[in-house]
Amino acid sequence: MDPEQLTYDADGLLPAVVQDATTKEVLMLAYVDAEAVRRTLDTGTTWFWSRSRREYWNKGATSGNTQRVVAVRYDCDADALLLLVDPAGPACHTGEISCFHNEMDSPPTHPKTVK
Amino acid sequence: MDPEQLTYDADGLLPAVVQDATTKEVLMLAYVDAEAVRRTLDTGTTWFWSRSRREYWNKGATSGNTQRVVAVRYDCDADALLLLVDPAGPACHTGEISCFHNEMDSPPTHPKTVK
Repeated sequence: MDPEQLTYDADGLLPAVVQDATTKEVLMLAYVDAEAVRRTLDTGTTWFWSRSRREYWNKGATSGNTQRVVAVRYDCDADALLLLVDPAGPACHTGEISCFHNEMDSPPTHPKTVK
Repeated sequence: MDPEQLTYDADGLLPAVVQDATTKEVLMLAYVDAEAVRRTLDTGTTWFWSRSRREYWNKGATSGNTQRVVAVRYDCDADALLLLVDPAGPACHTGEISCFHNEMDSPPTHPKTVK
């Protein structure tokens, strides 16, 4: 599979889930275009497209918290990526290991049916 | 955190990563709006918005491969969700446990630098 063959949205992007290859913790979700996927494959470190800053970013380039890429998988629709990484430090800018450190209200113990 | 307080895109959607709460395998990625999040929290099973069919779907409603929700987490930007689930069967319509069963070319053993 070539990066150009993935299915991107109208903005040329698709979501990439980053997971710790060892602990299996989901660390973050960011967006990539074909060029970011290419850079990730070429360098073995994670590259994303920042939708707010409208620029490429190499995770850890400034913080030092780089992510070494162990494997790159795509889903059955080829419109989402899973990056398995070996992280050098926390993924989150808050210092938390994972960006997903906030929990919503727990689902009910006794689920009810929605029609 | 109320479902309405999450940060949705221009289409009112955000990506939800579904992870097996026990094995930690990332199973799939789908999209939710505030109503799908509400249904997920209310029922304890995963609800998504199908962008192609333009309708809500309750994972496993037809296949039987339901996902019992163990925890719902949101990321530091509140624009992505992580659903930890106990799946009753494969997540993928192909019969694979995970939709992320395709691997791209492995990154190089000796990474080079992209400027």
